[in-house]
Amino acid sequence: MNSYIISETEFDPLKIRKNESIMCRGNGYMCIRASLEERYPEEKRGTFINGVFDGANGEVSELAVLPDTTRFDIYVDGERVFLTGKNHTGYSRTLDMETGEAVRVFTWESRAGKKIKFKFRSFVSQEKAHIAAYKAELSASESADVKIITGICGEAANTGVQHIGAPVRRVYENKTMGLYAKTLASCVDIAVHCSVKCSAGCTVSHLADRRSLYKCIEFTLGEKSVVTEKLVSYVSSRDPEYDGAEPGSDTVAGDGKKYLENACSLGYDALFNESAGKQRAYWKRHGDKIVSKNGFYDRALKFALYHLNIMTSQSDNRVGIGAKGMSGEGYKGHSYWDTEIFIMPHFMFTEPEKARRLLEYRFKLLKSALKKAERFGFKGAMYPWEAAWITDGETCPEYGDIDLLTGEARRNLMGEIEVHISADIAYAVWQYYTITGDTGFMESCGCEIILLTALFWCSRVTEKNGRLEILNVIGPDEYKDCVDNNAYTNYMAYFNLKLVSKIKDIIPKRLKEKYDCEKIVSAAKNTAERLYLPEANENGIIPQFDGYAELKPIDLSPYKNKSCVGLIFKDYGFSQIQKMQVSKQADTVMLFYLLSEMFDKKTVFDNFKFYEERTVHDSSLSMCIHALLAARLGIIEAAEKMFYKACSVDLGDTDNSDDGIHSASIGGIWLALAMGFCGLGCEDGVLSASPVLPVDWESFELCVEYRGALIKIGADAGGTFAERLCGDKTKIKLNGKYIEV
Amino acid sequence: MNSYIISETEFDPLKIRKNESIMCRGNGYMCIRASLEERYPEEKRGTFINGVFDGANGEVSELAVLPDTTRFDIYVDGERVFLTGKNHTGYSRTLDMETGEAVRVFTWESRAGKKIKFKFRSFVSQEKAHIAAYKAELSASESADVKIITGICGEAANTGVQHIGAPVRRVYENKTMGLYAKTLASCVDIAVHCSVKCSAGCTVSHLADRRSLYKCIEFTLGEKSVVTEKLVSYVSSRDPEYDGAEPGSDTVAGDGKKYLENACSLGYDALFNESAGKQRAYWKRHGDKIVSKNGFYDRALKFALYHLNIMTSQSDNRVGIGAKGMSGEGYKGHSYWDTEIFIMPHFMFTEPEKARRLLEYRFKLLKSALKKAERFGFKGAMYPWEAAWITDGETCPEYGDIDLLTGEARRNLMGEIEVHISADIAYAVWQYYTITGDTGFMESCGCEIILLTALFWCSRVTEKNGRLEILNVIGPDEYKDCVDNNAYTNYMAYFNLKLVSKIKDIIPKRLKEKYDCEKIVSAAKNTAERLYLPEANENGIIPQFDGYAELKPIDLSPYKNKSCVGLIFKDYGFSQIQKMQVSKQADTVMLFYLLSEMFDKKTVFDNFKFYEERTVHDSSLSMCIHALLAARLGIIEAAEKMFYKACSVDLGDTDNSDDGIHSASIGGIWLALAMGFCGLGCEDGVLSASPVLPVDWESFELCVEYRGALIKIGADAGGTFAERLCGDKTKIKLNGKYIEV
Repeated sequence: MNSYIISETEFDPLKIRKNESIMCRGNGYMCIRASLEERYPEEKRGTFINGVFDGANGEVSELAVLPDTTRFDIYVDGERVFLTGKNHTGYSRTLDMETGEAVRVFTWESRAGKKIKFKFRSFVSQEKAHIAAYKAELSASESADVKIITGICGEAANTGVQHIGAPVRRVYENKTMGLYAKTLASCVDIAVHCSVKCSAGCTVSHLADRRSLYKCIEFTLGEKSVVTEKLVSYVSSRDPEYDGAEPGSDTVAGDGKKYLENACSLGYDALFNESAGKQRAYWKRHGDKIVSKNGFYDRALKFALYHLNIMTSQSDNRVGIGAKGMSGEGYKGHSYWDTEIFIMPHFMFTEPEKARRLLEYRFKLLKSALKKAERFGFKGAMYPWEAAWITDGETCPEYGDIDLLTGEARRNLMGEIEVHISADIAYAVWQYYTITGDTGFMESCGCEIILLTALFWCSRVTEKNGRLEILNVIGPDEYKDCVDNNAYTNYMAYFNLKLVSKIKDIIPKRLKEKYDCEKIVSAAKNTAERLYLPEANENGIIPQFDGYAELKPIDLSPYKNKSCVGLIFKDYGFSQIQKMQVSKQADTVMLFYLLSEMFDKKTVFDNFKFYEERTVHDSSLSMCIHALLAARLGIIEAAEKMFYKACSVDLGDTDNSDDGIHSASIGGIWLALAMGFCGLGCEDGVLSASPVLPVDWESFELCVEYRGALIKIGADAGGTFAERLCGDKTKIKLNGKYIEV
Repeated sequence: MNSYIISETEFDPLKIRKNESIMCRGNGYMCIRASLEERYPEEKRGTFINGVFDGANGEVSELAVLPDTTRFDIYVDGERVFLTGKNHTGYSRTLDMETGEAVRVFTWESRAGKKIKFKFRSFVSQEKAHIAAYKAELSASESADVKIITGICGEAANTGVQHIGAPVRRVYENKTMGLYAKTLASCVDIAVHCSVKCSAGCTVSHLADRRSLYKCIEFTLGEKSVVTEKLVSYVSSRDPEYDGAEPGSDTVAGDGKKYLENACSLGYDALFNESAGKQRAYWKRHGDKIVSKNGFYDRALKFALYHLNIMTSQSDNRVGIGAKGMSGEGYKGHSYWDTEIFIMPHFMFTEPEKARRLLEYRFKLLKSALKKAERFGFKGAMYPWEAAWITDGETCPEYGDIDLLTGEARRNLMGEIEVHISADIAYAVWQYYTITGDTGFMESCGCEIILLTALFWCSRVTEKNGRLEILNVIGPDEYKDCVDNNAYTNYMAYFNLKLVSKIKDIIPKRLKEKYDCEKIVSAAKNTAERLYLPEANENGIIPQFDGYAELKPIDLSPYKNKSCVGLIFKDYGFSQIQKMQVSKQADTVMLFYLLSEMFDKKTVFDNFKFYEERTVHDSSLSMCIHALLAARLGIIEAAEKMFYKACSVDLGDTDNSDDGIHSASIGGIWLALAMGFCGLGCEDGVLSASPVLPVDWESFELCVEYRGALIKIGADAGGTFAERLCGDKTKIKLNGKYIEV
């Protein structure tokens, strides 16, 4: 069984959207949903360029769906080709994550009984960021007239919202098609070019409609196969190549045309070989594996690594990671705390330069964070709960879905009071620094983030009960609005405040001139000392927030372990759930992962058990953290079960990946394995690990890049192991003992 | 054979769009395309309210596609219901134009072999302008779990362009759904309400996504049928009820809710009976018929009357008639000269108050016409070539489709130089006045239109060759750009100028105070006298424009009588066609219909023959006029053939009605019958007719409303006849003789 293969062997229209997400192809610059060539009502095509956000018509900025190039309208003897339950055989569709290529084959039967064999291949280039390629191969049992219409469709939109202005279109020398447009509000130039080539003997013409441009290819098909190659290039004026410059529309168009022409000189096969080579090189450095009778674990791990790679820019520090990566419209492409807490550790331990760029993105958001703090009457940096482009500011919509019970739109308070993100970012800055020792980053960005987030907390606390409290927040558990002293928030704020004293000796001169740093240092110290940190009650339970113990416990069994989330809302309204001991996801228990040094093992165990019973895991951010903690707690069987569920968030049999994969959960797969089962960490500048092997696994191993060395760490029947794959000799701490690898 | 029935007996996905257009339901206030309940990739749903135009994002104003209510997503045992070539039996779909109801039945077979019988009914109320109703009846051969999801879908857009801002949604008492939004640029408030009721025993819940609101109905189906009734109301702040007032969003929403609640108190059947009654009353006054072995003629006539009725407002004088009515997005809902020259005569002779309102719409556009003249350096009223809302001004886009040969967008010159529309409107004003004798209209609107359009021509002419010429225009034949002295334009301008002297005695005081009318009268007279009117050459042919005779004649047989238009562009570019004797449509010959008194019969005959040979009839405005003229010329056999083709523009086997029916062609069906075969006219205030009967017809008759009397005129084997159906006795001129009916 090949762990690199995601596949379906049966066509199911109800799985179209989910597969578009999980089989999405991309390269960190752009992603293209894995839409089927032929059209279905269930489809949701989507091509995205990292950073191309738009906020047309007064709605918040969102990652814009770009003109589509995935569609092939195919007619055989005038009959449109599409699949039903009965009109095809030999169906299979695979995404080979090892090479990045998707292959789809089937034999379709026309109403007249003619059998046409289809093979579609496609990939997004890992080597040439702007290029994607498609290939269609057709052959027939008997002669048939075939018409293929494919090109650039400018009708694609974000669920009824069009972000792309009226496009200008050109056909160059009856060959290359070009479509040029600007996003409506953000005025980003977009250029899409497309070339479609067909084996000899085809009649070729062009078609244009209001926003689109197509090539129409007609031929008579027989047993000899006819191959159509389609190459496309996407370019935007926000591309990292133009950072700092302001490219005109002509530059963007010219570059796009040049990229495509260059690709055309190679053709599909050469482009594919080049791209697959790059993708294989990626796997060589990311040789993580889980050997188990149940191949699902290893596939899920490959799946996680595949998506972590395609969702993250290779070079741009002006973009974050969307909650769905770029695999769909969900969460509008916005970056949340997911990036720092669930995804970034992977990069810190495997590609630290990517982690640095992601933190530089947060540094570029400082201006927005200062502005937001000011707007709400606070000091320092209050980070946007949802971030899009670096100048978009807070992009959390003020109103969310309508409450179907009351019929009224629900106010989204997250942008205003889900404040823990500022501490989460400061935490990640520190974590990155401890893992990489990158003082340059601290000097240019890190110190300033820590100082200004700490300053925010100094202003966000309230004098109450003879101490400083943090009132009216939303913690990670979003089923609870407007709570006081959320343990997660208070502890993370405390950590954030304490960081100031840790960096006080490396604060660069630049910042000392810019801010009254001594005052911030002393304010942070005083605030940390007087900040209320919720303590375990008589039962050893740290209350998730003030008054949690008094809430009503209910039986959650009807809502847990179900194939869809949010089931509890069928029985209770949001205001009722507020009054119950029900958590959507890991909240207090997050602390035992992030700030483990602050809690003894018994507290962790008791709280883990207590809260897990009260958690419906309706968030994809929940199960991975529980798996991680269970592994750390040594309850390996439970950890394995939870890990399986964490792996199933996108790969399981539910439909909640329709709008995109869950990046935090995908980061969480790696997190649970690395920080949970492998016990990965960093102590005083030394890489540490303490792998434990689940019963059902024969072995597992992780490849970690640590300060220049690539080290394989894992466990098998013979025990744990660590091995240096390249780089200089280095000291690591394995199972509590220092060794050299 | 029932002439009122338009039907299909086989499901063909490639016919979906065409049938959406031709089976469109409406009432002059709104139209709803006849989309199928279940979804298909080929579909183009569209609901339009007359006058609700929007020009978001710098594009020209267009009739906005509104949130959709036609969609029913139906799942049987988890399988989505849709039709393929093989999974259903007993398919039939009909639009009964007599009642306005559409009925669709089929038996669908699930993959597991269960047979489900579906019957869908729907109509747009003729009595309650804001109401549409749907009914779905299901029964099954064996027990099946059914889920129906239907409601208000806010994703609908004009071919990738969204005109509706982010909607606010409400569910009232778990029953009525309401969706509220504003058009993006024109800021028109839209309120859509929807109620879905199901027979007892159903589980009902609501679903919301980004822009939509649905009811989800679940039940177990057996042999006993389950009926779902869905009623909807559409209201906009541009509705005629609010003319003059500025209703707030709350008023619009409140009225929409009230209309729906009122409709709900009646239910589908009562609403239908009421609406069908109104529709039957319409047919009673429009008893036109053609009796022939070939039922197609009579059906086409009913089809024309049906669409003429639903495309035209019953009460609003701020809206025109779109080139596609409101049956699709084509031509952006804009009004062209089609209204005056091809459609309005029908109303002048059958419902003169509608004709008056349509001319009042042109009167309201005078301001735009004055502004346009000023912009181009002319005086008087230069009417917009394309008109949308009364304040939208010229809405002809500056650029049209791209030229696929050169790859460049083609400049649209119509807005600048297709100037004949100003004369066309003045012509219609006079025609209306001569038919109705409505002096009130002339006083309030008509005289001003004639004066200001005449003034425009005075400034538009150029002194050349010792006379006044009209240079650089586009005539009706749009295959010819930038020509000088287009015969149609010059003659119509002449007519327009001459009208001034005809009205000079009835110019109201108001206008004399506003304008220097004496000066206009004398300028018009002088201009008319010196205006060059192209005369017949030595062969008796009036040149379509200067230099026409020198153009190259080519063999048009490969391009005529084909099932699709524009075929000639496969062989020639636009600039080549400019140099050939090829007309898209009736151009010079239009004059023999409109200004017949200016030409002798031989000239008409010779020119008709000459130009018909050179015309590809690529415009839907062509064949009806040719049929009309052939009938007048007495070449009845040719007339009948041409009439058949005119009737086939929308009802034939082509796909060029996909974006909507052709209103001018539909007006032209009536026109050819009434002004052609029936020889209808008005001489010195007396209705005249001279019916001729085509060989294949047994009889035909027309119902004409003339100055208060309803008169039936026609011909059968026994000769011609005229009969008064109601109103006072009146004198008419039948076959040249005055009689009293």
